Amino acid sequence: MSENRPQPAPSGGHPLDWLEIREKERVAAGLRRRLRPRPADEPGVLDLAGNDYLGLARHPRVLAAAADAVRVWGAGSTGSRLVTGSTDLHAELEAELAAHLESEAALVFSSGYLANIGAITSLAGRGDLVVSDAINHASIVDACRLSRARVAITPHCDVAALAEVLAQRTEERALVVVDAVFSVDGDLAPLAEIAAVVRRYNAVLLVDEAHGLGVVGEAGRGAVHAAGLAGADHVVQTVTLSKAMGSQGGAVVGPQRVVDHLVDTARPFIFDTGLAPVCAAAALESLRMLREEPALAGAVRARARQIADGARGLGLRATVPAGAVASVLIGAPDAAFEAARRSAEAGVRVGCFRPPSVPDGISRLRLAARADLTDADVARALDVLAEATKGL
Amino acid sequence: MSENRPQPAPSGGHPLDWLEIREKERVAAGLRRRLRPRPADEPGVLDLAGNDYLGLARHPRVLAAAADAVRVWGAGSTGSRLVTGSTDLHAELEAELAAHLESEAALVFSSGYLANIGAITSLAGRGDLVVSDAINHASIVDACRLSRARVAITPHCDVAALAEVLAQRTEERALVVVDAVFSVDGDLAPLAEIAAVVRRYNAVLLVDEAHGLGVVGEAGRGAVHAAGLAGADHVVQTVTLSKAMGSQGGAVVGPQRVVDHLVDTARPFIFDTGLAPVCAAAALESLRMLREEPALAGAVRARARQIADGARGLGLRATVPAGAVASVLIGAPDAAFEAARRSAEAGVRVGCFRPPSVPDGISRLRLAARADLTDADVARALDVLAEATKGL
Ligand SMILES: Cc1ncc(COP(=O)(O)O)c(C=O)c1O
Ligand SMILES: Cc1ncc(COP(=O)(O)O)c(C=O)c1O
Repeated sequence: MSENRPQPAPSGGHPLDWLEIREKERVAAGLRRRLRPRPADEPGVLDLAGNDYLGLARHPRVLAAAADAVRVWGAGSTGSRLVTGSTDLHAELEAELAAHLESEAALVFSSGYLANIGAITSLAGRGDLVVSDAINHASIVDACRLSRARVAITPHCDVAALAEVLAQRTEERALVVVDAVFSVDGDLAPLAEIAAVVRRYNAVLLVDEAHGLGVVGEAGRGAVHAAGLAGADHVVQTVTLSKAMGSQGGAVVGPQRVVDHLVDTARPFIFDTGLAPVCAAAALESLRMLREEPALAGAVRARARQIADGARGLGLRATVPAGAVASVLIGAPDAAFEAARRSAEAGVRVGCFRPPSVPDGISRLRLAARADLTDADVARALDVLAEATKGL
Repeated sequence: MSENRPQPAPSGGHPLDWLEIREKERVAAGLRRRLRPRPADEPGVLDLAGNDYLGLARHPRVLAAAADAVRVWGAGSTGSRLVTGSTDLHAELEAELAAHLESEAALVFSSGYLANIGAITSLAGRGDLVVSDAINHASIVDACRLSRARVAITPHCDVAALAEVLAQRTEERALVVVDAVFSVDGDLAPLAEIAAVVRRYNAVLLVDEAHGLGVVGEAGRGAVHAAGLAGADHVVQTVTLSKAMGSQGGAVVGPQRVVDHLVDTARPFIFDTGLAPVCAAAALESLRMLREEPALAGAVRARARQIADGARGLGLRATVPAGAVASVLIGAPDAAFEAARRSAEAGVRVGCFRPPSVPDGISRLRLAARADLTDADVARALDVLAEATKGL
């Protein structure tokens, strides 16, 4: 965040010279990042860094649905959702998403990022309060800022603090925003308690199910459903189509009147090109597969627990996964980076989180399970993990 | 915008009851919108409402490239660009976009909306000045707000006002943001003059080429190129892949150091899932077709002028199109709506812009030309336009 607040540059120089100063600072802090494009085929690579939790991004049925959609609908949606960018596919996807989450309605956006911005800025504005968990996703943080509401940040999953902020507010309206499953550690928000507090203080709850859909709860209906809150009239969900659904895009799922309101007011809905039909088709096919094979959700959770248990068996500190993600705490940023590098060299790609992306300053490896991992994959991942963390 | 600032609701009611109050207000103001999903096949419909300016969204070559990409890469990119979401396709697309625009580098985002948010929030922050044209696109408006810079709005295309704001600023750094081609009327920003003023006052210029790429200038290299500013070291461009490129996504194109900076700091780049490979592939194929057939850009501009001239021949007021869009000024919102409705009924789909989307309160029809329109299409469009506007 501070990276976005440049210091004054020396007067008279080129107006972009400050970029080099900032770059040097990032290089010194070990924060310079490089894009490493991947090839289509990586024989022997086991990917535990991506978010294709159900292993559907390359499933033949999903590919066939996507290829069909290209043929039938063309490559792009050609316009904003309110002009030419809504196809029957979008409508089907919205209906089936709402049905699966047992909610009244859904509205598809071109990304999960913009779904959060759209939902939050349309449900809270100047004069309102938004309460946001300390480690909510960047898209929520941006949306809170953009809403112009007063934003109160509560300590991670601190329900008492939430209650206090809501009780003491002077604003009539309050929106509470929380990730269902936090992306770094894969821990679950205490949604039943949060929703009860939100109800008590007459507020609205928005839950980001980016890592919940397809993974958490019966048939992957998400954390809201698992908490018994499906269809609750004061709860709104956002989902992404880019993780368990193996595609791209996002959606807001909730009461019909919320969706109606978003159609009329959500700027990143109204003024953005509609999601490409091919992405809608791929997500829809993934969703249908999940509904036909509800055990997929349990499978990925079981694999994540197996990885975390295995890591603990190696003497490492690992989180207890609520969803698809197992997090292995390493400590120093360099050590985590080195472990991820060694692991990749040995053919197992894992994520690596370092400050400022970790809430507690403890760098970690992030291992995302997939429903289609085999016992051999997990054994291999653990072997590599053991080697990669040796002596760190 | 005011729609996003709800009035206090009566105390004690359901926390979402205010949505109904707002809905009634919008119904009364004629601002309630409905999604009308379209089917895949609409025999006999001539679409002049979408933004598929080069007619490539359904071109066999683009469809073949997209279908191939699905087979080779799967449906989604599976992660953020810095983790697993960068494929060789993204890198190729970035290289060819930069080459086509004769700029150093490019960076692909999942939408043009997020490209604007990423570029602007990374290039301007607290303590800086952003100067934005009064009718810039919603994504620019949102980005300006989110940047936390001081935002100065200048009257539409008023270069003198821009110079004054820049001259009188107290901030060391200033970013000037402007649409190359404005989406409602299709008019062109005076980029050469603007860039000269920006240079004189040691600021940076960001030009949104959403409606410029593929349409304006030689080979559709855009308005920056047409103004002789390609590769200028104080100019950054954003483009969308969802209009002339017939796909989905966006990109920032500019000096290498700007792209490097965005990779490290642009939140909607770092924290968003990478563009689906299929969308990158479709956009790449469209770009290649444009480079092989540079006359496509001239063709769409000629069609737009033909439509505008024809409309004037019917006694209507029409803008002089600089790009793909011809705008026919109607006046009252109801009349414009009725003309669009009649036109659609006769099989010609046109856009309809009413307050608050029109800068001057004059409602208009928006007719977007395509490079693949025939003389017969244009003749039909004009016949229908004549009938649809009769007696209004
Ligand atoms: C919690 C959370 N919310 C929102 C998003 C944004 O979704 P998308 O990448 O589909 O735009 C992500 C991931 O990217 C996420 O992890
Ligand atoms: C001027 C302008 N900028 C940005 C965008 C956003 O691009 P996208 O729809 O690809 O997100 C649009 C249109 O949607 C636009 O017209």
